[in-house]
Amino acid sequence: MAGAPKANAVVGQSGGPTAVINASLVGVIEEASKHPEIETLYGAVHAVAGIVKDEFIDLGKLSADELEQAAASTCAALGSSRDKPDEEYCAKIFDVFKKRNIGYFFYIGGNDSANTAHIINTMAAKADYELRAFHIPKTIDNDLLVTDHCPGFGTAAKFEACALMGDDLDNRALPGVKIDVIMGRHAGFLTAATALGKQRDDDGPHLVYFPERGVSMEKFLGDIEGVYKKLGRCVVAVSEGICDSGGVTWAKKLAEGVESDAHGNIQLSGTGALADFLAGQVKDKLKVKRVRADTFGYLQRSFAGLQSDVDVREARWCGRHAVQYAMEEVSGSVAIKRVAGGKDYKIEIFRTELKNVAEKTKPLPDEFINADGNGITDAFVEYAMPLTGGLPKTCYLGNYPRA
Amino acid sequence: MAGAPKANAVVGQSGGPTAVINASLVGVIEEASKHPEIETLYGAVHAVAGIVKDEFIDLGKLSADELEQAAASTCAALGSSRDKPDEEYCAKIFDVFKKRNIGYFFYIGGNDSANTAHIINTMAAKADYELRAFHIPKTIDNDLLVTDHCPGFGTAAKFEACALMGDDLDNRALPGVKIDVIMGRHAGFLTAATALGKQRDDDGPHLVYFPERGVSMEKFLGDIEGVYKKLGRCVVAVSEGICDSGGVTWAKKLAEGVESDAHGNIQLSGTGALADFLAGQVKDKLKVKRVRADTFGYLQRSFAGLQSDVDVREARWCGRHAVQYAMEEVSGSVAIKRVAGGKDYKIEIFRTELKNVAEKTKPLPDEFINADGNGITDAFVEYAMPLTGGLPKTCYLGNYPRA
Repeated sequence: MAGAPKANAVVGQSGGPTAVINASLVGVIEEASKHPEIETLYGAVHAVAGIVKDEFIDLGKLSADELEQAAASTCAALGSSRDKPDEEYCAKIFDVFKKRNIGYFFYIGGNDSANTAHIINTMAAKADYELRAFHIPKTIDNDLLVTDHCPGFGTAAKFEACALMGDDLDNRALPGVKIDVIMGRHAGFLTAATALGKQRDDDGPHLVYFPERGVSMEKFLGDIEGVYKKLGRCVVAVSEGICDSGGVTWAKKLAEGVESDAHGNIQLSGTGALADFLAGQVKDKLKVKRVRADTFGYLQRSFAGLQSDVDVREARWCGRHAVQYAMEEVSGSVAIKRVAGGKDYKIEIFRTELKNVAEKTKPLPDEFINADGNGITDAFVEYAMPLTGGLPKTCYLGNYPRA
Repeated sequence: MAGAPKANAVVGQSGGPTAVINASLVGVIEEASKHPEIETLYGAVHAVAGIVKDEFIDLGKLSADELEQAAASTCAALGSSRDKPDEEYCAKIFDVFKKRNIGYFFYIGGNDSANTAHIINTMAAKADYELRAFHIPKTIDNDLLVTDHCPGFGTAAKFEACALMGDDLDNRALPGVKIDVIMGRHAGFLTAATALGKQRDDDGPHLVYFPERGVSMEKFLGDIEGVYKKLGRCVVAVSEGICDSGGVTWAKKLAEGVESDAHGNIQLSGTGALADFLAGQVKDKLKVKRVRADTFGYLQRSFAGLQSDVDVREARWCGRHAVQYAMEEVSGSVAIKRVAGGKDYKIEIFRTELKNVAEKTKPLPDEFINADGNGITDAFVEYAMPLTGGLPKTCYLGNYPRA
C-alpha cells in the first residue's frame, strides 16, 4: 500500500438528516486537521448535487465553538441530497474532483450513500484516478449491514421511547385506542424502540407491528379488540412499512399516484393517510368511539435539542475513524462492533468494505420480535437501551390502591 | 370571613394533559401537608368521572421521591376526564363529598375545568354546603383570561420551537414545501410559538397562520409561492383551527361525521386530514413536487422528558397558592401576573374569581400577529421566550461563503 497522497478532501452528508449526522461531520473535520496529507477539507453543499455544481465551503475555517455548536445541532448542516449518481453523474464529479485536486472523499449516509461512494470509488479505480472513498454510517432506520447499529438510531430510538411514554400516559388519562405510525421504511428497529420506555405491566404500546411480519387486518383488529376489552384502552405502534399477509405494504395499497424518489422509494412519510385509514378501520369495525391516530413524521429525525449522548459520541468517533482509515486504506465503510453489553456497554470501531454495506438492508432480527409478531423481546431492550443514553422516568398514580 | 374548616380535600386533573399538570398536583400536595385544616387529601382518579364513582387515592401516602418523580413526569398522573357536570352530575358529586367530608376542591384544568369548579361551587353555596373550590390553570393552548399565561404553555411552546427548528433544518437539507399543523384549537399561541427558534434571516417557519385571522386558499397558496420562488423552499406552520375568510374552520369544511366531545368541541387533533388536504392543494395548484405535511398531534402535550424549567416551577407555585388561597377565601382561580419581562423575567401569583375564567377564551392578541396575518411580531417573542426556559442553538453551514 502506497502512503496516503497529499491532496484535498471532500466530505458530504447524504439522505435523510439525523440528530447526529453533524457530529460525524465534526469528527471528520477535527481528525482531518491532524493529518498534513489532507490539505483543504471541503464541505459539499447538498452532497453530490453540490459537488457537480462545484458548491463547496472550506471547513478548515470553522472555529472550535462553531464545531461544538455543529456537533450539538440536529440535521445536515451542509445540506443533503437524494440524487443517485449514474456514470454520467460520476463523470461530472470527477471533473470537479480533478479540478480541485480531491484525493479523499468522505460520505456520511445510509446504504444508498454507501453505494454512491462505492460507485464513485469503482469508477475512480477504472479511470486510474487516485481517490480514497469512505462511507460513514448514518440512518435512523438502523438498517445497515455489518455494523452493530447506526449512528442516528440511538437518538431516534430515544425520541420514539419518549414519545410513546408520553402518549401512553396521555391515553391513560383519556382512554381510547391510539395508533401511532412510525418511520423506518422496511426495517422495524425504530418501531420496536417505541416499547423501550415501558415501566409498568400495563404500559403501552400494547401492540407493535413491524414491516418484517405481514399482518392481516383481521389479526390487527382482533389484537386491538383483545387489549381494549382487557384494559379499556389500547396504544398501538405501527411501522409505516407495515405489510399485509401477502407482503404488500398497506401504504402501497392506499397510495394513489404517490411519488417515488430517484432510488425508487415510495413516499411513506409526510402524510397522515395510513394512520387515518387504520383509525377508521378501528372505529368502523370495532365500534370504539375515541380513536386517535398520529403520524410522527419528520420530528423523529430532526427534533432540535434532543440527542442521545451515546449516539453523539459514537457518531463523532465514526467520523474520526473514517479519516484515520483513509491514511491506511483506499476505501471502506466505518462500522461499530459491540464488545460489551448492558451496564458495561462498550464498542469498538472497525472498517469493512463498501460493497458489504452498499444498497443492502438489514431487517429487524427474528429474536427481537415476539412469537405473536406484535411486540418486542427482552433481547431487543438489551440491544437498544444503551444506545438511547437512558430514558426519563414517568409517574402514574391511577393504579394505586383506592382510599 | 370564617376560618378555614377542618375537612378533607379533593384534587383532580381535568382536560387534555400537559407536561406540567403533575407539577401543579405536587404543589397542591406539598402545601396541603402544611395546613392542619386539611385532614386527608384525596386524588380523584379521572377527575369528576372518578369522583362520582368514589374513586380516590390518598395522596398523603406518597413519598418525597414519588412527589419529585411525579413533578418531572408529563401527563395527568391521576387520569383525566372531559365530562362536563350538569346539575344531576353535581348532585352525585355532593353525595360523595358529603360522605367523605370534603371541604376543599382543587381542580387543575382549562376554561372548561374552571367552569366545572364554578358550577360545583355555585351549587354548593345554594345547598348551603361548605365547600372551597379553586381552579388551577393548565392548558397548552394558553387561552385563559386574566392570567398572563398558563402553566403547560411554556413547555408546549418549547416543543413547537424545537420541532420547527429541526424541521426547518430538515427542509434546508432536502428542500421543498413543508406544512406543519399545530394544536391550539381556536387560539394561535402555540402556532405562534413555532417561530420562536428562528436564528437566521431565512430560517423557517416562513409563514404562520393563526385561527384569529381568516385566510383564503388563494392567499395561502400565493404566500407559499412567493417564499418558494425566493428561497426554493418554504416551511409553513398552520393552526389546526385555521379559518377561511368567512370564519369557518377548514377542518370543519373537511370533516364528514367527525365526533365532538361533551363540550361541543369538534375533533381537531389525532387526524392528518387537514395537513394532507393542504399538501394536496400545494402540489396541485403550485406544481411543487416535494411537498410534505406533518400533524404534530398528541406529542405536543405529552412528550416525555421535555419540560421548560420555568413552566414546571410556575405550575408548582400555582398548585401551592391554590391551597394557600383556600385558607383565606371560599373560591377562586389562580392566575399569573408578569412583573418584569426579558432577562429580568419575574412573576407574581394572584387570585381571581372563577367566573372571570370559566368558559371564556383569550385569543392571540393583535399585537402578536404581523400586518399580513402570516407571521409573529417581536412582541410575541418577548412575551413567550422566557416561558420556554431557553432554546437550543442550531447550526447551518450551507449559507457560508463558497470556497
